[in-house]
Amino acid sequence: MAMEDKGEEYRCRALAEDLLGKTTRLPVKLWLSALRVGREDPRRVVHAVKVGVALTFVSCLYLLKPLFEGIGQDAMWAVITVVVVLEFTAGATLCKGLNRGFGTLCAASLAFFIEVVAQKSGKEFHAIFIGISVFLVGFLATYLRFVPYIKKNYEYGVVIFLLTFNLITISSFRVENVLDLTRDRLLTIAIGCGVCLFMSLFILPNWSGEDLHNSTVHKLEVLARSIEACVHEFFESHDQKSPVREDESSKDEIYKGYRAVLDSKSSDETLALFASWEPRHSRHCYSFPWEQYVKLGAIIRHFGYTTVALHGCLESEIQTPQSVRSLFRDPCVRVAGEVRKVLDELARSIRNRRHCSPDVLSDHLHEALHDLNSAIKSQPRLFLSSKSACRAAAERRPAAEKSATTLPSARSDITFVMAPEWRGGKRAAADQPPVKELKTLRPTLSKIAMTSLEFSEALPFAAFASLLVEMVARLELVIEEVEELSRAANFKEFSQQDQIAIEMERKEKERAAAVKDFHSHVVWRHSAAD
Amino acid sequence: MAMEDKGEEYRCRALAEDLLGKTTRLPVKLWLSALRVGREDPRRVVHAVKVGVALTFVSCLYLLKPLFEGIGQDAMWAVITVVVVLEFTAGATLCKGLNRGFGTLCAASLAFFIEVVAQKSGKEFHAIFIGISVFLVGFLATYLRFVPYIKKNYEYGVVIFLLTFNLITISSFRVENVLDLTRDRLLTIAIGCGVCLFMSLFILPNWSGEDLHNSTVHKLEVLARSIEACVHEFFESHDQKSPVREDESSKDEIYKGYRAVLDSKSSDETLALFASWEPRHSRHCYSFPWEQYVKLGAIIRHFGYTTVALHGCLESEIQTPQSVRSLFRDPCVRVAGEVRKVLDELARSIRNRRHCSPDVLSDHLHEALHDLNSAIKSQPRLFLSSKSACRAAAERRPAAEKSATTLPSARSDITFVMAPEWRGGKRAAADQPPVKELKTLRPTLSKIAMTSLEFSEALPFAAFASLLVEMVARLELVIEEVEELSRAANFKEFSQQDQIAIEMERKEKERAAAVKDFHSHVVWRHSAAD
Repeated sequence: MAMEDKGEEYRCRALAEDLLGKTTRLPVKLWLSALRVGREDPRRVVHAVKVGVALTFVSCLYLLKPLFEGIGQDAMWAVITVVVVLEFTAGATLCKGLNRGFGTLCAASLAFFIEVVAQKSGKEFHAIFIGISVFLVGFLATYLRFVPYIKKNYEYGVVIFLLTFNLITISSFRVENVLDLTRDRLLTIAIGCGVCLFMSLFILPNWSGEDLHNSTVHKLEVLARSIEACVHEFFESHDQKSPVREDESSKDEIYKGYRAVLDSKSSDETLALFASWEPRHSRHCYSFPWEQYVKLGAIIRHFGYTTVALHGCLESEIQTPQSVRSLFRDPCVRVAGEVRKVLDELARSIRNRRHCSPDVLSDHLHEALHDLNSAIKSQPRLFLSSKSACRAAAERRPAAEKSATTLPSARSDITFVMAPEWRGGKRAAADQPPVKELKTLRPTLSKIAMTSLEFSEALPFAAFASLLVEMVARLELVIEEVEELSRAANFKEFSQQDQIAIEMERKEKERAAAVKDFHSHVVWRHSAAD
Repeated sequence: MAMEDKGEEYRCRALAEDLLGKTTRLPVKLWLSALRVGREDPRRVVHAVKVGVALTFVSCLYLLKPLFEGIGQDAMWAVITVVVVLEFTAGATLCKGLNRGFGTLCAASLAFFIEVVAQKSGKEFHAIFIGISVFLVGFLATYLRFVPYIKKNYEYGVVIFLLTFNLITISSFRVENVLDLTRDRLLTIAIGCGVCLFMSLFILPNWSGEDLHNSTVHKLEVLARSIEACVHEFFESHDQKSPVREDESSKDEIYKGYRAVLDSKSSDETLALFASWEPRHSRHCYSFPWEQYVKLGAIIRHFGYTTVALHGCLESEIQTPQSVRSLFRDPCVRVAGEVRKVLDELARSIRNRRHCSPDVLSDHLHEALHDLNSAIKSQPRLFLSSKSACRAAAERRPAAEKSATTLPSARSDITFVMAPEWRGGKRAAADQPPVKELKTLRPTLSKIAMTSLEFSEALPFAAFASLLVEMVARLELVIEEVEELSRAANFKEFSQQDQIAIEMERKEKERAAAVKDFHSHVVWRHSAAD
């Protein structure tokens, strides 16, 4: 009994300590998170300052005596407008501001019309009439909000319409000079909207169109990196004794890469919607081709699905033995490298607002595909599932290439997958909170013991190769869409100077890669010597 | 010159007619679209009526004399609250209502604290003090809105906080009895919130949790259908002389299926967010496991990516000849059929809120995989790209099976793809507006003439088979997650009666399919006779 009591006491204390810890940690956490928010995008700090300034400015309407006597209590509406309308980007502010202005105007007109009709009747009838019109307008406006087109573009306007209509109609019942009241209110709302538009369009504006542009560039770059990482991992993860950490981080990169691209749909569409409200703000194009960006985004996502499938081959239940994989390593890596180069060039061209290089689809890509093709053709017995066939294939490999890779592992990768340590490792990884979602990518061990089927081990490799080829085919669609964007956005022509810049950049990259390779080689040899 | 004038006139008239047509068509369009909105989900009509009733009710606060004398001008705030807070689902209303209430309370407290501090100073200092506090609170609140956690859960509350704080602080400068004013205002806002909560929780409530539940079931069903359609099309589209329309519709089904699933992320997360605010509303579970639904949604989307890749094989540049495909038709169709059955059973179990059948992964699936495996193993020369190999493989097929399929086409599918008619057809299809987005799925003809490479024609089939196997592996993850959901949501156990119901349903379906088959057979024979 005493022990139970102690246990209870202990538990209570632990709970209290836990609670205390959480309460003290919360402000720290919030503070760190707030710092990170500002560091990620300093424009956010600027925006917060802008809101503060705008609010203080409209407060002056109320605080300063001469202004207050002109406007009076209605200055409230200017404050409300600033709080509600001033958004992060110019497009969003315009969208909300114009919606608010237009909604208010429509509502005021309708309310006056009803007022004129109702005024001619007695007091009782007036009240009933107002009640009925409030119900009807409320019903219709709410119903209208469900229509997809209105929901997308004018939802805020409809809400403001409903709000203003009700306020004016009901006020008209008790207040005599509704016309004056409404005029004052409209004036202050106009002042509020004016302050918001001035702040967001002229003082350090953030353009949704710019954000959309940058996010498109970012998506292409990130996809390029994750495709290359994917292919490298497919061929290197098991045979090279790279430290686990690096391996994990490369997986993370792949995952984060395509994840960011695939999840970009709704944020892109919001940006495009706001961009569609923005006036022309750069000398590059006559009107911002936001529709084209949305289309390109869809194509890039579609391209991204192939990356997911490629990544799926890495995580597959059935693993092609390393001996077979290494046969096709070079052509596959080359194809992926060429795809990466193309994506990088596309990203660069969009970033610099110029047409992409006319030889963006170089002969190298063609050659790489050709090599992959010959490599596959040279191994007609790949589909044989017996290990002897794989070994036979591996033996037919040229001696020079063979010496460069490790010995073919005696056990197939399948037995590796089945090993209990691996299972334990998987569990442990799944429990870590930061990579929680990554768990969805890990294969489970099938209840129906798929591995016992001894599926042809070359199957996943065939899928891998096929997906790579498919990727090249889809690359074409991306290029086509980027070219269309270049035309729509009036990008400048590709010039000789751009060519030179590309060459310079490429050489710089190659030099950096060579230096890195050399260093890692030295480190590797050192650690091997240890 | 005269001709040019005429041309100009003609163009003007055409433009005017076009404009007139658009203006007259707009109301019709809007009306049709409004009708569709109501027919799609009749709860929308009910919601619109609810908003109308709630608005009329709070208007009475103003219109009826005894009530008006108690509350007065502040009744406005009840109206504003109802317009802004009353949302379609109970969760959304709760989220907004509580945010509004809490934000208002916090703002009022802070404003009073500042008021107490400021009151002690002179008028000038008071104004400056208010100006500074307005700036600081505006800055901090706006900045806080960027913190992801707050943005997700409490953004509306922060906006209301800022709004109320400004209104009270500024009012306090000119109005004497701010305390009374604030009390009245809080009271009316509370009345407004109360009306909203009553309307959305007790009068025909719509639960976000329910919607999330139904959307999960729908996703599983739709994926099941699109996988089966995908496999059927892979094996049937070219050899059977099915009319084009049907073919297109099946493609549409596949596309729409996985598209809806892949695009469900943001809508699911919104529903889950609102569901997290909802109280327990069914006897099935103690608190709604919205997190589990989000996790399941992510897993289903991940499963969906395999469907996209599978669909990619259909649209691939390189096409496996029909003769090779038909060798593997039966096992592939069987595997897909079994996958479909599993997905259907999962959907059914979630819909009926019961645990899924313990033998959801039946032996049939195992057998089907086994057959696919043997079929692949029996064709070791698949990777040979020369057509003779394919033909040889086709000849090795048992005679009975051969007679059932059409003759192997002499030209490979690649030459078919290269034919100019096809290219023309593709263009025409791309121009049709309703299937505009489908265009993204069509292969382009590669500039680098990928087809000239004569890639091993079995490659896409290998990818197809590998993806099917991968799909089965991922199916396991889906089942695991559904089981976890069943536990979290306290679904009822699987009973004998459920087993019987499943059997009945299956038999009913088989009978319907047989009848349909018979009918289509008769129609086909009739049209062949014609």
